[in-house]
Amino acid sequence: MAQKQYSVRLFVSSDLGKDLGVVLDKAQSHYVATVMRQQKDDKVALFNGRDGEWIGVLQEVHKNHCLVHLVEQRRPQTPEPDIYMLFAPVKKAQTNMIVQKATELGAAKIMPVQTVRTHGERIRNDKLNLQALEAAEQCQRLNVPLVEEIQKLETTLLALEPDRILIFCNENLTGEHPLEVLNGLKGASKWAVLTGPEGGFTDEECAFIESRENTHTISLGPRLLRAETAAIASLTLLQATCGDW
Amino acid sequence: MAQKQYSVRLFVSSDLGKDLGVVLDKAQSHYVATVMRQQKDDKVALFNGRDGEWIGVLQEVHKNHCLVHLVEQRRPQTPEPDIYMLFAPVKKAQTNMIVQKATELGAAKIMPVQTVRTHGERIRNDKLNLQALEAAEQCQRLNVPLVEEIQKLETTLLALEPDRILIFCNENLTGEHPLEVLNGLKGASKWAVLTGPEGGFTDEECAFIESRENTHTISLGPRLLRAETAAIASLTLLQATCGDW
Repeated sequence: MAQKQYSVRLFVSSDLGKDLGVVLDKAQSHYVATVMRQQKDDKVALFNGRDGEWIGVLQEVHKNHCLVHLVEQRRPQTPEPDIYMLFAPVKKAQTNMIVQKATELGAAKIMPVQTVRTHGERIRNDKLNLQALEAAEQCQRLNVPLVEEIQKLETTLLALEPDRILIFCNENLTGEHPLEVLNGLKGASKWAVLTGPEGGFTDEECAFIESRENTHTISLGPRLLRAETAAIASLTLLQATCGDW
Repeated sequence: MAQKQYSVRLFVSSDLGKDLGVVLDKAQSHYVATVMRQQKDDKVALFNGRDGEWIGVLQEVHKNHCLVHLVEQRRPQTPEPDIYMLFAPVKKAQTNMIVQKATELGAAKIMPVQTVRTHGERIRNDKLNLQALEAAEQCQRLNVPLVEEIQKLETTLLALEPDRILIFCNENLTGEHPLEVLNGLKGASKWAVLTGPEGGFTDEECAFIESRENTHTISLGPRLLRAETAAIASLTLLQATCGDW
Protein backbone atom coordinates (compact mmCIF):
# COMPACT_ATOMS: atom_id res chain seq x y z
CA MET A 1 0.00 0.00 0.00
CA ALA A 2 1.17 3.52 -0.70
CA GLN A 3 2.04 5.38 2.47
CA LYS A 4 2.54 9.05 3.07
CA GLN A 5 6.24 9.91 2.97
CA TYR A 6 7.41 12.31 5.65
CA SER A 7 9.97 14.76 4.35
CA VAL A 8 12.06 14.31 7.48
CA ARG A 9 12.83 10.78 8.64
CA LEU A 10 15.64 10.33 11.15
CA PHE A 11 17.45 7.57 12.99
CA VAL A 12 17.87 8.30 16.71
CA SER A 13 19.33 6.29 19.54
CA SER A 14 16.67 7.26 22.13
CA ASP A 15 13.82 4.99 23.10
CA LEU A 16 10.61 5.70 21.22
CA GLY A 17 7.11 5.48 22.72
CA LYS A 18 3.83 7.30 23.17
CA ASP A 19 4.25 10.83 24.58
CA LEU A 20 8.01 10.51 24.97
CA GLY A 21 10.13 13.51 24.05
CA VAL A 22 13.22 13.13 21.83
CA VAL A 23 15.96 15.72 21.59
CA LEU A 24 17.64 15.77 18.18
CA ASP A 25 21.40 16.23 18.08
CA LYS A 26 23.11 19.24 16.58
CA ALA A 27 23.59 17.85 13.07
CA GLN A 28 20.01 16.61 12.88
CA SER A 29 18.67 19.89 14.26
CA HIS A 30 20.60 21.81 11.62
CA TYR A 31 19.12 19.53 8.96
CA VAL A 32 15.58 19.90 10.30
CA ALA A 33 15.65 23.64 10.97
CA THR A 34 17.97 25.02 8.29
CA VAL A 35 18.04 22.53 5.41
CA MET A 36 14.45 21.26 5.52
CA ARG A 37 13.04 24.48 7.05
CA GLN A 38 10.66 22.62 9.34
CA GLN A 39 8.70 24.61 11.87
CA LYS A 40 7.00 24.09 15.22
CA ASP A 41 4.06 21.64 14.89
CA ASP A 42 5.43 20.02 11.70
CA LYS A 43 5.50 16.25 11.79
CA VAL A 44 8.62 14.12 11.47
CA ALA A 45 9.26 10.35 11.43
CA LEU A 46 11.79 8.76 13.80
CA PHE A 47 13.14 5.20 14.11
CA ASN A 48 15.78 3.60 16.31
CA GLY A 49 16.06 0.01 15.09
CA ARG A 50 14.10 -1.31 18.09
CA ASP A 51 10.73 0.38 18.56
CA GLY A 52 9.42 0.67 15.03
CA GLU A 53 8.78 4.00 13.32
CA TRP A 54 7.11 6.85 15.19
CA ILE A 55 5.49 10.08 14.13
CA GLY A 56 6.37 13.04 16.27
CA VAL A 57 5.47 16.72 16.36
CA LEU A 58 8.22 19.33 16.51
CA GLN A 59 7.74 21.25 19.74
CA GLU A 60 10.90 23.31 19.62
CA VAL A 61 12.92 24.09 16.50
CA HIS A 62 16.32 25.69 16.86
CA LYS A 63 19.32 25.23 14.59
CA ASN A 64 21.28 23.51 17.40
CA HIS A 65 18.48 21.81 19.20
CA CYS A 66 15.07 20.39 18.31
CA LEU A 67 12.53 18.68 20.55
CA VAL A 68 10.11 16.11 19.14
CA HIS A 69 6.98 14.96 20.97
CA LEU A 70 6.09 11.44 19.86
CA VAL A 71 2.40 10.95 19.11
CA GLU A 72 1.91 7.60 17.43
CA GLN A 73 3.66 4.52 16.18
CA ARG A 74 3.39 4.40 12.43
CA ARG A 75 4.95 0.97 11.84
CA PRO A 76 5.93 -1.74 14.35
CA GLN A 77 9.49 -3.09 14.31
CA THR A 78 9.60 -6.13 12.04
CA PRO A 79 12.44 -8.58 11.50
CA GLU A 80 14.37 -8.35 8.25
CA PRO A 81 16.13 -11.11 6.31
CA ASP A 82 19.47 -12.04 7.88
CA ILE A 83 21.76 -11.33 4.91
CA TYR A 84 25.39 -10.21 5.17
CA MET A 85 26.96 -8.39 2.24
CA LEU A 86 30.67 -9.25 1.88
CA PHE A 87 32.53 -7.29 -0.76
CA ALA A 88 36.03 -6.31 -1.78
CA PRO A 89 36.30 -2.51 -1.60
CA VAL A 90 37.10 -0.79 -4.86
CA LYS A 91 37.51 2.93 -5.44
CA LYS A 92 36.02 5.25 -2.85
CA ALA A 93 32.96 6.30 -4.85
CA GLN A 94 32.08 2.71 -5.72
CA THR A 95 32.64 1.52 -2.16
CA ASN A 96 30.28 4.24 -0.95
CA MET A 97 27.79 3.14 -3.57
CA ILE A 98 27.96 -0.49 -2.48
CA VAL A 99 27.25 0.51 1.13
CA GLN A 100 24.37 2.74 0.09
CA LYS A 101 22.79 0.15 -2.20
CA ALA A 102 23.32 -2.76 0.19
CA THR A 103 21.44 -0.71 2.78
CA GLU A 104 18.58 0.02 0.40
CA LEU A 105 18.46 -3.64 -0.55
CA GLY A 106 18.17 -4.69 3.07
CA ALA A 107 21.55 -6.18 3.98
CA ALA A 108 21.68 -6.81 7.74
CA LYS A 109 25.44 -6.35 7.96
CA ILE A 110 28.01 -4.96 5.51
CA MET A 111 31.48 -6.50 5.65
CA PRO A 112 34.37 -5.20 3.53
CA VAL A 113 36.96 -7.92 2.91
CA GLN A 114 40.59 -7.59 1.90
CA THR A 115 41.48 -9.76 -1.10
CA VAL A 116 44.70 -10.22 -3.06
CA ARG A 117 43.54 -7.83 -5.77
CA THR A 118 41.96 -5.27 -3.42
CA HIS A 119 44.10 -2.20 -3.83
CA GLY A 120 42.67 -0.39 -0.91
CA GLU A 121 42.38 3.23 -0.51
CA ARG A 122 41.88 3.30 3.22
CA ILE A 123 38.38 2.38 4.35
CA ARG A 124 36.83 5.11 6.47
CA ASN A 125 34.35 3.20 8.62
CA ASP A 126 32.92 6.35 10.18
CA LYS A 127 32.04 7.68 6.72
CA LEU A 128 30.67 4.36 5.54
CA ASN A 129 28.47 4.00 8.60
CA LEU A 130 27.15 7.50 7.99
CA GLN A 131 26.43 6.49 4.39
CA ALA A 132 24.45 3.47 5.65
CA LEU A 133 22.56 5.62 8.16
CA GLU A 134 21.54 8.16 5.52
CA ALA A 135 20.50 5.43 3.10
CA ALA A 136 18.39 3.77 5.83
CA GLU A 137 16.69 7.08 6.61
CA GLN A 138 15.84 7.57 2.94
CA CYS A 139 14.72 4.08 2.01
CA GLN A 140 12.22 3.66 4.85
CA ARG A 141 14.15 0.88 6.59
CA LEU A 142 13.46 0.40 10.29
CA ASN A 143 17.09 -0.27 11.19
CA VAL A 144 20.62 0.64 10.09
CA PRO A 145 23.06 -2.06 9.00
CA LEU A 146 26.47 -2.07 10.65
CA VAL A 147 29.47 -1.58 8.36
CA GLU A 148 32.22 -3.68 9.92
CA GLU A 149 35.93 -2.95 9.90
CA ILE A 150 37.71 -4.45 6.91
CA GLN A 151 39.25 -7.88 7.53
CA LYS A 152 41.11 -10.37 5.42
CA LEU A 153 38.80 -12.51 3.30
CA GLU A 154 40.03 -15.63 5.04
CA THR A 155 39.43 -14.19 8.52
CA THR A 156 35.89 -13.13 7.63
CA LEU A 157 34.97 -16.46 6.09
CA LEU A 158 36.37 -18.46 8.99
CA ALA A 159 34.37 -16.34 11.42
CA LEU A 160 31.03 -16.88 9.66
CA GLU A 161 28.71 -19.36 11.40
CA PRO A 162 29.14 -22.69 9.57
CA ASP A 163 25.43 -22.94 8.77
CA ARG A 164 25.26 -19.48 7.18
CA ILE A 165 24.72 -19.99 3.45
CA LEU A 166 27.39 -18.19 1.41
CA ILE A 167 26.49 -17.11 -2.13
CA PHE A 168 29.73 -16.65 -4.05
CA CYS A 169 29.44 -14.49 -7.17
CA ASN A 170 32.30 -15.59 -9.36
CA GLU A 171 32.94 -13.46 -12.41
CA ASN A 172 34.74 -16.31 -14.12
CA LEU A 173 31.32 -17.52 -15.23
CA THR A 174 31.86 -20.91 -13.69
CA GLY A 175 28.84 -20.68 -11.38
CA GLU A 176 25.38 -22.09 -11.87
CA HIS A 177 22.32 -20.08 -12.82
CA PRO A 178 21.52 -17.82 -9.85
CA LEU A 179 17.81 -18.56 -9.68
CA GLU A 180 18.34 -22.31 -9.81
CA VAL A 181 20.73 -22.10 -6.90
CA LEU A 182 18.72 -19.59 -4.85
CA ASN A 183 15.38 -21.33 -5.38
CA GLY A 184 16.90 -24.38 -3.77
CA LEU A 185 17.83 -22.41 -0.64
CA LYS A 186 14.47 -20.94 0.30
CA GLY A 187 14.28 -22.81 3.57
CA ALA A 188 17.47 -21.30 4.97
CA SER A 189 17.43 -18.42 7.42
CA LYS A 190 20.98 -16.97 7.33
CA TRP A 191 22.78 -15.88 4.19
CA ALA A 192 25.86 -14.02 3.08
CA VAL A 193 26.70 -12.77 -0.41
CA LEU A 194 30.30 -12.32 -1.56
CA THR A 195 31.37 -10.22 -4.54
CA GLY A 196 34.90 -9.56 -5.69
CA PRO A 197 37.30 -6.77 -6.59
CA GLU A 198 38.13 -5.43 -10.02
CA GLY A 199 40.17 -8.16 -11.62
CA GLY A 200 38.35 -10.84 -9.64
CA PHE A 201 39.54 -13.33 -7.06
CA THR A 202 42.73 -15.33 -7.54
CA ASP A 203 42.47 -19.05 -8.25
CA GLU A 204 43.68 -19.75 -4.72
CA GLU A 205 41.01 -17.49 -3.26
CA CYS A 206 38.31 -19.17 -5.35
CA ALA A 207 39.44 -22.60 -4.17
CA PHE A 208 39.44 -21.44 -0.55
CA ILE A 209 35.98 -19.89 -0.84
CA GLU A 210 34.49 -22.91 -2.58
CA SER A 211 36.00 -25.30 -0.04
CA ARG A 212 33.79 -23.79 2.65
CA GLU A 213 30.71 -25.81 3.66
CA ASN A 214 27.36 -24.29 2.70
CA THR A 215 28.88 -22.26 -0.12
CA HIS A 216 27.17 -21.96 -3.51
CA THR A 217 28.76 -20.38 -6.57
CA ILE A 218 26.50 -18.46 -8.93
CA SER A 219 27.00 -16.75 -12.27
CA LEU A 220 25.69 -13.24 -12.92
CA GLY A 221 25.31 -13.58 -16.65
CA PRO A 222 27.57 -13.46 -19.70
CA ARG A 223 28.71 -9.84 -19.37
CA LEU A 224 31.42 -8.81 -16.96
CA LEU A 225 29.75 -6.75 -14.23
CA ARG A 226 31.59 -4.07 -12.32
CA ALA A 227 32.09 -4.76 -8.64
CA GLU A 228 29.26 -2.49 -7.51
CA THR A 229 26.84 -3.81 -10.14
CA ALA A 230 27.55 -7.37 -9.03
CA ALA A 231 26.82 -6.44 -5.42
CA ILE A 232 23.48 -4.85 -6.31
CA ALA A 233 22.48 -7.65 -8.68
CA SER A 234 23.28 -10.45 -6.25
CA LEU A 235 21.42 -8.86 -3.33
CA THR A 236 18.45 -8.22 -5.62
CA LEU A 237 18.27 -11.87 -6.60
CA LEU A 238 18.63 -13.06 -3.03
CA GLN A 239 15.90 -10.73 -1.73
CA ALA A 240 13.58 -11.67 -4.59
CA THR A 241 13.96 -15.41 -4.01
CA CYS A 242 14.71 -15.97 -0.32
CA GLY A 243 14.21 -12.53 1.24
CA ASP A 244 11.33 -10.19 1.97
CA TRP A 245 10.35 -9.07 -1.55
CA MET B 1 34.41 -20.62 -19.03
CA ALA B 2 37.01 -18.14 -17.98
CA GLN B 3 38.48 -16.29 -20.95
CA LYS B 4 41.61 -14.24 -21.21
CA GLN B 5 40.80 -10.55 -20.82
CA TYR B 6 42.60 -8.24 -23.23
CA SER B 7 43.64 -5.00 -21.58
CA VAL B 8 42.49 -3.07 -24.63
CA ARG B 9 39.03 -3.78 -26.04
CA LEU B 10 37.55 -1.23 -28.42
CA PHE B 11 34.38 -0.62 -30.37
CA VAL B 12 35.05 0.38 -33.99
CA SER B 13 32.75 1.08 -36.91
CA SER B 14 34.92 -0.68 -39.54
CA ASP B 15 34.14 -4.13 -40.85
CA LEU B 16 36.08 -6.87 -39.11
CA GLY B 17 37.48 -9.99 -40.80
CA LYS B 18 40.54 -12.12 -41.25
CA ASP B 19 43.61 -10.13 -42.34
CA LEU B 20 41.73 -6.85 -42.55
CA GLY B 21 43.47 -3.73 -41.29
CA VAL B 22 41.69 -1.32 -38.93
CA VAL B 23 42.82 2.25 -38.34
CA LEU B 24 41.95 3.49 -34.84
CA ASP B 25 40.74 7.06 -34.51
CA LYS B 26 42.65 9.76 -32.69
CA ALA B 27 41.01 9.30 -29.28
CA GLN B 28 41.42 5.53 -29.40
CA SER B 29 45.02 5.84 -30.57
CA HIS B 30 45.78 8.19 -27.67
CA TYR B 31 44.23 5.65 -25.31
CA VAL B 32 46.16 2.72 -26.79
CA ALA B 33 49.53 4.44 -27.15
CA THR B 34 49.63 6.89 -24.25
CA VAL B 35 47.23 5.66 -21.58
CA MET B 36 47.64 1.91 -21.98
CA ARG B 37 51.22 2.12 -23.31
CA GLN B 38 50.68 -0.61 -25.87
CA GLN B 39 53.44 -1.34 -28.32
CA LYS B 40 53.90 -2.81 -31.78
CA ASP B 41 52.93 -6.50 -31.82
CA ASP B 42 50.71 -6.23 -28.70
CA LYS B 43 47.28 -7.76 -29.09
CA VAL B 44 44.01 -5.89 -28.79
CA ALA B 45 40.34 -6.94 -29.04
CA LEU B 46 37.93 -5.14 -31.38
CA PHE B 47 34.16 -5.41 -31.93
CA ASN B 48 31.69 -3.53 -34.11
CA GLY B 49 28.28 -4.91 -33.17
CA ARG B 50 28.09 -6.97 -36.38
CA ASP B 51 31.09 -9.24 -36.89
CA GLY B 52 31.74 -10.60 -33.41
CA GLU B 53 34.93 -9.93 -31.48
CA TRP B 54 38.31 -10.05 -33.19
CA ILE B 55 41.84 -10.22 -31.95
CA GLY B 56 44.25 -7.98 -33.78
CA VAL B 57 47.95 -7.22 -33.61
CA LEU B 58 49.13 -3.63 -33.40
CA GLN B 59 51.24 -2.97 -36.50
CA GLU B 60 51.73 0.75 -36.02
CA VAL B 61 51.42 2.64 -32.75
CA HIS B 62 51.40 6.42 -32.79
CA LYS B 63 49.58 8.72 -30.42
CA ASN B 64 47.34 9.99 -33.24
CA HIS B 65 47.11 6.90 -35.33
CA CYS B 66 47.25 3.15 -34.74
CA LEU B 67 46.91 0.33 -37.24
CA VAL B 68 45.57 -3.07 -36.19
CA HIS B 69 45.97 -6.21 -38.27
CA LEU B 70 43.11 -8.62 -37.50
CA VAL B 71 44.23 -12.20 -37.01
CA GLU B 72 41.33 -14.22 -35.65
CA GLN B 73 37.75 -14.06 -34.56
CA ARG B 74 37.54 -14.67 -30.84
CA ARG B 75 33.76 -14.78 -30.46
CA PRO B 76 31.04 -14.83 -33.12
CA GLN B 77 28.29 -12.22 -33.01
CA THR B 78 25.38 -13.60 -30.99
CA PRO B 79 21.92 -12.13 -30.51
CA GLU B 80 21.11 -10.54 -27.15
CA PRO B 81 17.78 -10.31 -25.37
CA ASP B 82 15.59 -7.57 -26.82
CA ILE B 83 15.08 -5.46 -23.68
CA TYR B 84 14.54 -1.69 -23.66
CA MET B 85 15.36 0.25 -20.51
CA LEU B 86 12.97 3.18 -20.03
CA PHE B 87 13.79 5.49 -17.15
CA ALA B 88 13.11 8.99 -15.87
CA PRO B 89 16.43 10.86 -15.71
CA VAL B 90 17.46 12.04 -12.30
CA LYS B 91 20.60 13.97 -11.40
CA LYS B 92 23.47 13.81 -13.84
CA ALA B 93 25.62 11.33 -11.93
CA GLN B 94 22.73 8.94 -11.40
CA THR B 95 21.59 9.24 -15.01
CA ASN B 96 25.13 8.36 -16.12
CA MET B 97 25.08 5.43 -13.74
CA ILE B 98 21.78 4.12 -15.11
CA VAL B 99 23.18 4.22 -18.66
CA GLN B 100 26.38 2.49 -17.59
CA LYS B 101 24.60 -0.23 -15.60
CA ALA B 102 21.88 -0.79 -18.20
CA THR B 103 24.67 -1.39 -20.71
CA GLU B 104 26.45 -3.87 -18.41
CA LEU B 105 23.15 -5.61 -17.79
CA GLY B 106 22.52 -6.02 -21.49
CA ALA B 107 19.76 -3.53 -22.34
CA ALA B 108 19.33 -3.37 -26.12
CA LYS B 109 18.14 0.23 -26.11
CA ILE B 110 18.17 2.93 -23.43
CA MET B 111 15.29 5.41 -23.50
CA PRO B 112 15.11 8.39 -21.13
CA VAL B 113 11.52 9.52 -20.62
CA GLN B 114 10.20 12.84 -19.38
CA THR B 115 7.70 12.50 -16.54
CA VAL B 116 5.79 15.03 -14.47
CA ARG B 117 8.31 14.77 -11.64
CA THR B 118 11.41 14.64 -13.86
CA HIS B 119 13.22 17.85 -13.08
CA GLY B 120 15.62 17.60 -15.94
CA GLU B 121 19.04 18.88 -16.02
CA ARG B 122 19.54 18.77 -19.77
CA ILE B 123 20.26 15.32 -21.12
CA ARG B 124 23.49 15.24 -23.10
CA ASN B 125 22.95 12.38 -25.52
CA ASP B 126 26.47 12.56 -26.88
CA LYS B 127 27.87 12.05 -23.37
CA LEU B 128 25.40 9.29 -22.54
CA ASN B 129 26.18 7.42 -25.75
CA LEU B 130 29.88 7.66 -24.90
CA GLN B 131 29.09 6.28 -21.44
CA ALA B 132 27.28 3.32 -23.05
CA LEU B 133 30.17 2.74 -25.46
CA GLU B 134 32.77 2.68 -22.69
CA ALA B 135 30.61 0.39 -20.57
CA ALA B 136 30.18 -1.98 -23.51
CA GLU B 137 33.94 -2.04 -24.12
CA GLN B 138 34.55 -2.90 -20.46
CA CYS B 139 31.84 -5.48 -19.91
CA GLN B 140 32.70 -7.67 -22.90
CA ARG B 141 29.45 -6.97 -24.75
CA LEU B 142 29.50 -7.48 -28.50
CA ASN B 143 27.37 -4.43 -29.26
CA VAL B 144 26.63 -0.97 -27.91
CA PRO B 145 23.09 0.00 -26.93
CA LEU B 146 21.70 3.20 -28.39
CA VAL B 147 20.74 5.92 -25.91
CA GLU B 148 17.73 7.63 -27.48
CA GLU B 149 16.81 11.30 -27.20
CA ILE B 150 14.53 12.00 -24.26
CA GLN B 151 10.81 11.98 -25.09
CA LYS B 152 7.65 12.41 -23.09
CA LEU B 153 6.61 9.26 -21.29
CA GLU B 154 3.35 9.17 -23.21
CA THR B 155 5.09 9.53 -26.59
CA THR B 156 7.53 6.73 -25.81
CA LEU B 157 4.85 4.35 -24.59
CA LEU B 158 2.58 5.00 -27.58
CA ALA B 159 5.49 4.31 -29.92
CA LEU B 160 6.35 0.92 -28.39
CA GLU B 161 5.21 -2.08 -30.43
CA PRO B 162 1.92 -3.25 -28.87
CA ASP B 163 3.25 -6.77 -28.30
CA ARG B 164 6.35 -5.58 -26.44
CA ILE B 165 5.94 -6.59 -22.78
CA LEU B 166 6.30 -3.59 -20.47
CA ILE B 167 7.48 -4.23 -16.90
CA PHE B 168 6.39 -1.28 -14.79
CA CYS B 169 8.31 -0.89 -11.52
CA ASN B 170 5.96 1.04 -9.28
CA GLU B 171 7.44 2.28 -6.04
CA ASN B 172 4.00 2.56 -4.48
CA LEU B 173 4.34 -1.14 -3.66
CA THR B 174 1.11 -1.98 -5.44
CA GLY B 175 2.74 -4.40 -7.88
CA GLU B 176 2.94 -8.15 -7.69
CA HIS B 177 6.02 -10.13 -6.73
CA PRO B 178 8.56 -9.64 -9.53
CA LEU B 179 9.50 -13.30 -9.96
CA GLU B 180 5.88 -14.44 -10.11
CA VAL B 181 5.20 -11.94 -12.86
CA LEU B 182 8.43 -12.52 -14.80
CA ASN B 183 8.29 -16.31 -14.59
CA GLY B 184 4.95 -16.09 -16.38
CA LEU B 185 6.50 -14.18 -19.28
CA LYS B 186 9.32 -16.50 -20.27
CA GLY B 187 7.87 -17.20 -23.69
CA ALA B 188 7.93 -13.56 -24.79
CA SER B 189 10.69 -12.16 -26.99
CA LYS B 190 10.46 -8.36 -26.60
CA TRP B 191 10.51 -6.54 -23.29
CA ALA B 192 10.80 -3.06 -21.86
CA VAL B 193 11.38 -2.07 -18.25
CA LEU B 194 10.18 1.28 -16.88
CA THR B 195 11.45 2.90 -13.68
CA GLY B 196 10.47 6.26 -12.30
CA PRO B 197 11.89 9.53 -11.05
CA GLU B 198 12.58 10.59 -7.48
CA GLY B 199 9.15 11.13 -6.01
CA GLY B 200 7.62 8.53 -8.30
CA PHE B 201 5.01 8.72 -11.01
CA THR B 202 1.80 10.70 -10.53
CA ASP B 203 -1.47 8.83 -10.13
CA GLU B 204 -2.44 9.90 -13.65
CA GLU B 205 0.83 8.58 -15.06
CA CYS B 206 0.36 5.27 -13.25
CA ALA B 207 -3.16 4.93 -14.65
CA PHE B 208 -1.92 5.71 -18.16
CA ILE B 209 0.96 3.23 -17.93
CA GLU B 210 -1.22 0.47 -16.52
CA SER B 211 -3.90 1.02 -19.16
CA ARG B 212 -1.44 -0.12 -21.84
CA GLU B 213 -1.88 -3.66 -23.16
CA ASN B 214 0.88 -6.11 -22.26
CA THR B 215 1.91 -4.11 -19.20
CA HIS B 216 2.73 -5.80 -15.90
CA THR B 217 3.32 -3.95 -12.63
CA ILE B 218 5.89 -5.37 -10.25
CA SER B 219 7.04 -4.46 -6.77
CA LEU B 220 10.74 -4.18 -5.89
CA GLY B 221 10.38 -4.98 -2.23
CA PRO B 222 9.38 -3.15 0.93
CA ARG B 223 12.17 -0.57 0.96
CA LEU B 224 12.04 2.52 -1.21
CA LEU B 225 14.76 2.11 -3.84
CA ARG B 226 16.49 5.07 -5.43
CA ALA B 227 15.85 5.53 -9.12
CA GLU B 228 19.17 4.04 -10.19
CA THR B 229 18.89 1.08 -7.82
CA ALA B 230 15.42 0.30 -9.18
CA ALA B 231 16.76 0.35 -12.74
CA ILE B 232 19.59 -2.07 -11.89
CA ALA B 233 17.37 -4.36 -9.81
CA SER B 234 14.63 -4.63 -12.42
CA LEU B 235 17.03 -5.38 -15.29
CA THR B 236 18.75 -7.98 -13.12
CA LEU B 237 15.49 -9.77 -12.44
CA LEU B 238 14.45 -9.66 -16.08
CA GLN B 239 17.79 -11.02 -17.33
CA ALA B 240 17.80 -13.75 -14.68
CA THR B 241 14.28 -14.95 -15.54
CA CYS B 242 13.66 -14.22 -19.22
CA GLY B 243 17.06 -13.07 -20.51
CA ASP B 244 20.44 -14.60 -21.22
CA TRP B 245 21.67 -15.29 -17.68
